[in-house]
Amino acid sequence: MRLGFLGGTGIEGKGLALRFALAGASVSIGSRSAERARATAEEYNLVLGKPLIQGMSNQEMIAASELVFLTIPSEHAVATVETYRKEFSPRSVLIDVTVPIRFVGGRAEYLEPPKGSNSEQIASILPPGVPIVGAFKTIPAHIMMELETPLDCDLFVCGDSADAKNRVMQAGRMLPTLRPLDAGPLSAARTLERMTVLAVHLNRFYKKKGARYRIQGI
Amino acid sequence: MRLGFLGGTGIEGKGLALRFALAGASVSIGSRSAERARATAEEYNLVLGKPLIQGMSNQEMIAASELVFLTIPSEHAVATVETYRKEFSPRSVLIDVTVPIRFVGGRAEYLEPPKGSNSEQIASILPPGVPIVGAFKTIPAHIMMELETPLDCDLFVCGDSADAKNRVMQAGRMLPTLRPLDAGPLSAARTLERMTVLAVHLNRFYKKKGARYRIQGI
Repeated sequence: MRLGFLGGTGIEGKGLALRFALAGASVSIGSRSAERARATAEEYNLVLGKPLIQGMSNQEMIAASELVFLTIPSEHAVATVETYRKEFSPRSVLIDVTVPIRFVGGRAEYLEPPKGSNSEQIASILPPGVPIVGAFKTIPAHIMMELETPLDCDLFVCGDSADAKNRVMQAGRMLPTLRPLDAGPLSAARTLERMTVLAVHLNRFYKKKGARYRIQGI
Repeated sequence: MRLGFLGGTGIEGKGLALRFALAGASVSIGSRSAERARATAEEYNLVLGKPLIQGMSNQEMIAASELVFLTIPSEHAVATVETYRKEFSPRSVLIDVTVPIRFVGGRAEYLEPPKGSNSEQIASILPPGVPIVGAFKTIPAHIMMELETPLDCDLFVCGDSADAKNRVMQAGRMLPTLRPLDAGPLSAARTLERMTVLAVHLNRFYKKKGARYRIQGI
């Protein structure tokens, strides 16, 4: 499976890219600058000990990927998708992992976007027919980065295209101890994004870093 | 610990009342009609095999209880609290377990209240100083009712009074395999109520009845 990371040189996508590469996926990292993407890929490959990850321009990455992860800071998500909107095609799925959050007096707060969630906000600017899915929002980047730590949690996947969700859930099954679950329509991102804020609160309150969700009874 | 159930004759509070009575709490069931409350208490005591639960008018129940569970259908929650608002005192904590939900074409939808969540909506009509906590929202009534099924999940407790939250979490610890977690301010009810809608979706999608949440990493 060919996976790409839009804004793949930041902390948000690093753990995901490394874990998917280790699991056998073909992983491409995109950046505005192809050179910078290649440098980051090289750095990631050093961690992996194998040249599994490629770096390239965002345009090339989008053209080459079946699934494109939007792994940039939430506040830049909409602008970045705007920049590359013409590159997206109905053949590849955009996976929005972003969560709009701010800290007020040390407390995490959800920054509700006008459309109800970041995923719906981003969907509203995509060309018609380009499938978008909200997923990987509730899994802490910190845990993703600790490659030796089992994820041991559920992957909530929401979207309005059953086919797109299935492709993302199929990719999710590549990662050991991660269980993909169909979380309903794209508007369920309103729930998933807030769940991330709750997890951030729990981490702060209980002085932990890896709060994540597991559904019992399913 | 003296626990009361406002609208305790419905399905919403039955499992909670039975489980708390079995765990050794003093449990009172309230109803508009004291007679109806006593009949329901008798019925519950038959299930328990011991006369552990008392029935009384809602007024008497509120006066007698340290913690008052609001366990009525969501659409009647605000009106019921309006009716009894003068009975509440700062000494007892109101626990809102309600979730405003509707079904559209077989799909569960969150009915967002004007104040952002049902708990905040109810808080806005309580007399000043009466503590309110949102809790027990994400645990399916179906599982609560199956007394032999371990709850085996987390109890999310949100509210703006740390003392009130602590009292509710202390009560929660009476129920085996239930882990109380501080979920932050009352506005976190926006998250918890939506999480219930997600659990309802998961139950329908995966043809289960007991989807509930467990936090890993804490």
